Amino acid sequence: MPKYALGLDFGTNSVRALVADVADGREVGAGVHNYEHGEAGIILGRDPNLARQHPADYLTGIEKSARAALRAAAKADRRFRPADVVGIGVDTTGSTPIPVDAAGRPLALDRRFAKNPAAMAWLWKDHTGHGEAEEITALARGIRPQYLAKCGGTYSSEWFWSKILHCLRTSPEVFAAAHSWVECTDWIPAVLTGTDQPSRIARGICAAGHKAMYHESWGGLPDAEFLSRLDPRLAELRPRLFKKAFTIEKTAGGLTDEWAKRLGLAADIPVAVGAFDAHLGAVGSGIKPGTLVKILGTSSCDMMVAPLEQSLPDIPGLCGIVPGSILPGFHGLEAGQSAVGDIFNWFVNCVAPGGKKLGSHEALSKAAARLAPGESGLVALDWNNGNRTVLVDQRLTGLVLGQTLHTTGPELYRALIEACAFGALAIIERFEEYGVAVREVVNCGGIAEKNPLVLQIYADVTGRPMKVAASSQTCALGSAICGAVAAGCYPDFAAAQARMTGLKPKVFSPKPSAHETYRKLYALYRQLHDAFGTREWQGNLHNVMKDLLAVRAAARGEV
Amino acid sequence: MPKYALGLDFGTNSVRALVADVADGREVGAGVHNYEHGEAGIILGRDPNLARQHPADYLTGIEKSARAALRAAAKADRRFRPADVVGIGVDTTGSTPIPVDAAGRPLALDRRFAKNPAAMAWLWKDHTGHGEAEEITALARGIRPQYLAKCGGTYSSEWFWSKILHCLRTSPEVFAAAHSWVECTDWIPAVLTGTDQPSRIARGICAAGHKAMYHESWGGLPDAEFLSRLDPRLAELRPRLFKKAFTIEKTAGGLTDEWAKRLGLAADIPVAVGAFDAHLGAVGSGIKPGTLVKILGTSSCDMMVAPLEQSLPDIPGLCGIVPGSILPGFHGLEAGQSAVGDIFNWFVNCVAPGGKKLGSHEALSKAAARLAPGESGLVALDWNNGNRTVLVDQRLTGLVLGQTLHTTGPELYRALIEACAFGALAIIERFEEYGVAVREVVNCGGIAEKNPLVLQIYADVTGRPMKVAASSQTCALGSAICGAVAAGCYPDFAAAQARMTGLKPKVFSPKPSAHETYRKLYALYRQLHDAFGTREWQGNLHNVMKDLLAVRAAARGEV
Repeated sequence: MPKYALGLDFGTNSVRALVADVADGREVGAGVHNYEHGEAGIILGRDPNLARQHPADYLTGIEKSARAALRAAAKADRRFRPADVVGIGVDTTGSTPIPVDAAGRPLALDRRFAKNPAAMAWLWKDHTGHGEAEEITALARGIRPQYLAKCGGTYSSEWFWSKILHCLRTSPEVFAAAHSWVECTDWIPAVLTGTDQPSRIARGICAAGHKAMYHESWGGLPDAEFLSRLDPRLAELRPRLFKKAFTIEKTAGGLTDEWAKRLGLAADIPVAVGAFDAHLGAVGSGIKPGTLVKILGTSSCDMMVAPLEQSLPDIPGLCGIVPGSILPGFHGLEAGQSAVGDIFNWFVNCVAPGGKKLGSHEALSKAAARLAPGESGLVALDWNNGNRTVLVDQRLTGLVLGQTLHTTGPELYRALIEACAFGALAIIERFEEYGVAVREVVNCGGIAEKNPLVLQIYADVTGRPMKVAASSQTCALGSAICGAVAAGCYPDFAAAQARMTGLKPKVFSPKPSAHETYRKLYALYRQLHDAFGTREWQGNLHNVMKDLLAVRAAARGEV
Repeated sequence: MPKYALGLDFGTNSVRALVADVADGREVGAGVHNYEHGEAGIILGRDPNLARQHPADYLTGIEKSARAALRAAAKADRRFRPADVVGIGVDTTGSTPIPVDAAGRPLALDRRFAKNPAAMAWLWKDHTGHGEAEEITALARGIRPQYLAKCGGTYSSEWFWSKILHCLRTSPEVFAAAHSWVECTDWIPAVLTGTDQPSRIARGICAAGHKAMYHESWGGLPDAEFLSRLDPRLAELRPRLFKKAFTIEKTAGGLTDEWAKRLGLAADIPVAVGAFDAHLGAVGSGIKPGTLVKILGTSSCDMMVAPLEQSLPDIPGLCGIVPGSILPGFHGLEAGQSAVGDIFNWFVNCVAPGGKKLGSHEALSKAAARLAPGESGLVALDWNNGNRTVLVDQRLTGLVLGQTLHTTGPELYRALIEACAFGALAIIERFEEYGVAVREVVNCGGIAEKNPLVLQIYADVTGRPMKVAASSQTCALGSAICGAVAAGCYPDFAAAQARMTGLKPKVFSPKPSAHETYRKLYALYRQLHDAFGTREWQGNLHNVMKDLLAVRAAARGEV
């Protein structure tokens, strides 16, 4: 009798449910529900940094997406019966903390706070706490440098404590009413298993370690003295948060009767501890030691694992190094680029070269694909949304250099793709400089699915084959794998991944001549990268434009 | 009885004739003739550096344009009679040398060379001699540094000797057949006055001094030893060129009977020695000590004069400092930007932001005008076609910096205009650093006529009022002024200019708050300018993007 696992993937605008065959990862049925509040699920404010979500959307989304997925599975697979779903896994965006009352109910569901954005889920991309992030970074730099060493040297405005401290400062009534704060990724499994009373919630190491400065080496969350230096009320909150965080191997509990009824599933099937979408996307892409999984979408997440036995230095610029955050038994390493697809989208939508007809992604990609590496004489920096890795500086901006009176839209488009590829190579180099060898690169996400030009340029720039995960919904698949492991279908994640994940047959191989040209361009990219991105660099840039002209002349066969 | 002067203005694509009232500069009639050979008058080749013109187009153009102007004058002014035209002046592009035989006939008019581009006029923008330019620069740097000191430190591929030496190397049969080489600007007056036998041609100081390294302090043209080090045949050519060059005060001769008949003018009226379009454009804009005349078109020419009595140092980066090249009795100082309107045209035509509807100059200007200085967070370099002044480096390229995910086409367009304004300010500063005070700025040319946004930004960036010449055809008017002075209607140019030139009533005044913002942006422009454009600069650029964000925040009222 076949068995199935359900993966629930809470994205920025919608939730996706996936029913996967536990035996081979076959995707039997999927369902999507778009959040109903705000603009495409995001509640905005006058402050452009504000981005919130309504927890009610999550609850509705579970039911709508899961039921749709189960219906689709029944339609696609005549053997499928909902009772054969043996486990559930959950991934969400993050850091997306939610203030909850003593019963674990989100304050946004309390009539008193129904319209107060501070009482809602603070979506990952909410940057209202940028001042608090600087404050936390400065304090940690002064008295707890170890806290920063595990998260790239800078605490982000997107993260847990920045948001809570900002709430304390700007909406003290909400802060005062919050008994605890729970990451969305911990809250969903708790709701499904009836363990949502704050003291009972099984908190995931993924959110805790990457966003809340949790680390076992200093006893879990940041200590009370540190927190009270930020605000004594934060130190008071600390005991109402959590002491220990768990890997996805841990089960949050069994599905409640009520949710079993609402979804049409068997009661008490295990629900795994939740994790972030990128991390479970990596699981669904078959991450293992030596394999870099790149989730290429509007931004990129670059994930690796290294055995816990391997002694690993702190790696400057990485967003985080957290034991067990991706796979149990391994350090989870997270890097990324603040914008990838967003840069291409910006060029198409805001600059709109050539107008609608000539300026679509399709038309620009087609024209850009005809260009030889180096032929445009352009080089760009991929910083339109700042730099996450390796500079960890959101206040960097874009740069394009080498324009002549003949530079075209497709040339600029290609230069932006190349810039993202150079940024990707800088991340690979940083991993390897610190002893984490990259033996394979597996891509997933929207751009990996849709844009072969990007993958070919990535291969040519990095000099490495670019592989693509078989699944086009690796996050949901990773969640389903958690469900399968929680159900005991596999002894461990490696065994589950071996059967349930795979690669697409098409591999993008680097062309040696293109790689040689890109090595020269990358040297110029690095020169600009260091000159504009670091305080340490000293030098002169007179060579840059000349060197580009030399590369261009060679690419055009003029020398 | 009214008197009139005829100005003949030979441009890149057409020749324009203007009949002006000698009493007040009133423009009575004009005629334009488009050259017939090549593409819009330019003969191109497989080598993109090649740009030639056919001398026959000049001859046809004199007749067609002048007759049209005279007809228009007769129509517009009932008192006008062609017999009342008392003098002629001529301006042309340059350096545009023409190889001629012993009789002064262009080799292109000889059947043997009819289709040989080397036998035609080597148009100013022909860059085939870029290798020879480097060779000449290197030799002069080694043994005749004084030759370079008067032309900004680098001999250009656009200039006289680069072209002749390139002809010698690549078309030796044409070089051998050439008895002499004559700048177009010297050839036209010679033809009109029947003085076109090479030894009789009155050569203008404008072309000689700015393009042929002619200077009285070293006895005229470069010496034979210098030339023979380039090629002995150049030294052999030297005596067949010229010994002395003249200012526009000098008359080339009287109009021949034949030309008088062809044009319907009185015979023997004086024809002034020719000069380049930019120089006579400055005359037609009322140039005088302290007045910077900017000719703003596809590129810019920035012209000043300083009394010959004023001891003037060599000014690094200026295209040339030549006694008498603009006005008799004054040093002529020439600077400029390699591209201005060409950069805006590039953006509109090659990048085409927003497509045809949103991406026209009109639409972009309108949207860009609504932006506050600094609001975009962008800064750009105006080097898409290299940098003429002050860096004298054609192998520099463009740069745009500060892009976010929200940067728009109009913001980029405005940043390009601002970049050109910053380049203009760098030129003003260079003049003043070397003791040539800029007390007034008068603009002319297509952009000055058409784009008020550009002039307002120039005013705001430089902190100086931008005035606009009254005439919309200042080059042809300057030529007509030469004709008037040659005819003795005025004792000198100052007297003629006082009556025949003027300013438009509208003056673009700098806004103090905008200027303050632009001072900050200019500091960043200079940092990039020096970092990428000079070998001497040493430093770090980490501040640039942060400073731009600070300027942006202030402009948006966020601080």
